[in-house]
Amino acid sequence: MRQSLQPSRAPGDYQFVHRVRTRFAETDAMGIIHHAAYLPYLEEARVEFLRHVGHPYDAVRAEGLNFAVLEVMVQYRKPLLFDDVLDVHLVLGSVSRATFQLAYLLTVAHEMRATAVTVHGCVDANGKALRLPPWVVAQSAP
Amino acid sequence: MRQSLQPSRAPGDYQFVHRVRTRFAETDAMGIIHHAAYLPYLEEARVEFLRHVGHPYDAVRAEGLNFAVLEVMVQYRKPLLFDDVLDVHLVLGSVSRATFQLAYLLTVAHEMRATAVTVHGCVDANGKALRLPPWVVAQSAP
Amino acid sequence: MRQSLQPSRAPGDYQFVHRVRTRFAETDAMGIIHHAAYLPYLEEARVEFLRHVGHPYDAVRAEGLNFAVLEVMVQYRKPLLFDDVLDVHLVLGSVSRATFQLAYLLTVAHEMRATAVTVHGCVDANGKALRLPPWVVAQSAP
Amino acid sequence: MRQSLQPSRAPGDYQFVHRVRTRFAETDAMGIIHHAAYLPYLEEARVEFLRHVGHPYDAVRAEGLNFAVLEVMVQYRKPLLFDDVLDVHLVLGSVSRATFQLAYLLTVAHEMRATAVTVHGCVDANGKALRLPPWVVAQSAP
Repeated sequence: MRQSLQPSRAPGDYQFVHRVRTRFAETDAMGIIHHAAYLPYLEEARVEFLRHVGHPYDAVRAEGLNFAVLEVMVQYRKPLLFDDVLDVHLVLGSVSRATFQLAYLLTVAHEMRATAVTVHGCVDANGKALRLPPWVVAQSAP
Repeated sequence: MRQSLQPSRAPGDYQFVHRVRTRFAETDAMGIIHHAAYLPYLEEARVEFLRHVGHPYDAVRAEGLNFAVLEVMVQYRKPLLFDDVLDVHLVLGSVSRATFQLAYLLTVAHEMRATAVTVHGCVDANGKALRLPPWVVAQSAP
Repeated sequence: MRQSLQPSRAPGDYQFVHRVRTRFAETDAMGIIHHAAYLPYLEEARVEFLRHVGHPYDAVRAEGLNFAVLEVMVQYRKPLLFDDVLDVHLVLGSVSRATFQLAYLLTVAHEMRATAVTVHGCVDANGKALRLPPWVVAQSAP
Repeated sequence: MRQSLQPSRAPGDYQFVHRVRTRFAETDAMGIIHHAAYLPYLEEARVEFLRHVGHPYDAVRAEGLNFAVLEVMVQYRKPLLFDDVLDVHLVLGSVSRATFQLAYLLTVAHEMRATAVTVHGCVDANGKALRLPPWVVAQSAP
């Protein structure tokens, strides 16, 4: 397992936040948001984070670079419901030569709902592993 | 509107059937299968139909051909539930030089749940419209 | 078929617009937004429309009322791509005692991408059909 | 983190296997199966495992019991592609009074594609935690 981050429960430990409203299509027969729907929330937050740091993901991809998902870990702490206004807090954690990790805190009205970690690698259009571009390394906290 | 088919309610009017079991992930907070989940069921039936007639879709795509979806129409007649064993009946209907239409009947234990029509065009890898390959035309009922 | 609306191509013919950004999770191997992903866009626009007219859908549901989807028709005119900023224009059309219809125009940067119609009925928590509440009828254009 | 399983890479270490074919709707613009689509594969395998051990999930739910997902961890080792015939191997691992863990090995033609762990708790219809039923404990390897 490559994951080495322990996601903090304090929003102040995160460097970026993206807000998303849950969809009815994402609910399930338990009356809550289905657990698989969280992964696109994390992805959407990553995409907005990339835009925020000046590297929109479609521009990154146009240069032949993709950020493959190598690992995902989600801890579901309290259900999300339909129409919740969800804040996805994100911080870039451990960065190696070929992979980087992100930690996430999901809150609704300042209350924790989930934490997560994703691990990513750079690949070209054919899926071949590449070194991380310098700007990714530069975003990582000192 | 290009749709010109009126989907029959009689399974005998269809040339192919594909069975799929509904997933819990496809349910919603109304306790039924969410209406958007039906489109992948239709698609899965199309893919199996193509395999059945000797033209698996990945082989079709490897030749640079895609079947773009131009129109979708679904009539939801009775809800699908979690764990339903669904039969998707399919028939190739109207075929023109550049488009073809499929009609669908969805049943559970021989009881109608939905009907649908999809309209497709052939496009190359860049989305440019192409003539239909002869084998599609040949599949259409006389 | 209950659909009787012909969706207009003129944004001015619609009474509400909701903006959504397409997700990477919604793309497919053709490099475009998968056709099934449009249905949650329409649903999200309906939910925001209900909020806009003072009847948030979770409040409607808390009163034991659901708006079941009876029919969906989508015409895909030009592909949506990852990261597109999509405007979903919506207008309440034909209203009967038990059903109502909505027409949609989907645009990106004022360019048409798709049109759609959905037909809905009111059901209680057990799926039994109910008369439409008066406020739905009141929203319909004179 | 509650996960304590290390998923084995040997199919022989698993007690159940469920086969599923990947859908075109589950691909993304990288031309591979989107990482979020794996979670419904795991869920579908769990549902079939429950049926296999004589406790179909809809019967379990009809008794007022739900198996909430508390944690998910997936390691993506080699991409899944459209139309892959995927074997989801599953084994019930650590069982406590209130939670149980499952490990998964995903293979295509005997080649590893991913490993995963999910952690579950029993909840009633209102989401309140319950003790595990005895039959779950009984399924766990000695």
